[in-house]
Amino acid sequence: MINKVSHIGIAVNSIDAMLKLYTESLGLKLQEIEILAEQKVRTAIIPVGESKIELLESTDPEGPIAKFIEKRGEGLHHIALEVSDLRSALGDLKQKNIPLIDLEPRRGVENTSIAFLHPKESKVLLELVEAKK
Amino acid sequence: MINKVSHIGIAVNSIDAMLKLYTESLGLKLQEIEILAEQKVRTAIIPVGESKIELLESTDPEGPIAKFIEKRGEGLHHIALEVSDLRSALGDLKQKNIPLIDLEPRRGVENTSIAFLHPKESKVLLELVEAKK
Repeated sequence: MINKVSHIGIAVNSIDAMLKLYTESLGLKLQEIEILAEQKVRTAIIPVGESKIELLESTDPEGPIAKFIEKRGEGLHHIALEVSDLRSALGDLKQKNIPLIDLEPRRGVENTSIAFLHPKESKVLLELVEAKK
Repeated sequence: MINKVSHIGIAVNSIDAMLKLYTESLGLKLQEIEILAEQKVRTAIIPVGESKIELLESTDPEGPIAKFIEKRGEGLHHIALEVSDLRSALGDLKQKNIPLIDLEPRRGVENTSIAFLHPKESKVLLELVEAKK
């Protein structure tokens, strides 16, 4: 069901302030910066092997990343696992009574389909991602 | 300098209670459970693509994972990035004035060499790992 770690999301106050650590100091490369308006997030996508680090900056003080930082501070926000078929994966999890935030796939960055599991069971925010076809 | 995401460390109260979600529900496989006595940690290693999820359970109420959970609750603890040459990577980071917890490599799980960066700059706990030769 799961192919790989798609990305690791890190909530930051400022992409500009944090990017230097990953690029200049750790030698990684910025792929692109994308804005996801409906999620009130600006994200810097940094490939690492087959996975990515995504720095997440809120574009709105009421956005979910701003709220997360207000409560927990900057830091690790979620991990995303890549699946081949998101609809089938969600159906399977529903059947196993795993609590979900998204019952149906919705749009993520880079034209992916995504869904979040509810963290009440896992204690971490887990996202499932289906890459664009 | 960095090859891939080596693993994602998740602090949990009980590996036994949390493992089912990753194996039975998400279909991943447990590779092994290892005890790192000096770090007071028991860890369940779950491969995901070229990376791993590591569930980290404290073996001692005074251990670093127990302290983390006491302060922040269960959840994402650190990310580890694989490098080819840890000594050279640490030398490079020292030269760039990146704050480090470990100035020299020390032993990690699966006979790896590891070192942690200090989170005061990154806001996340970053580990560098050199795989066994």
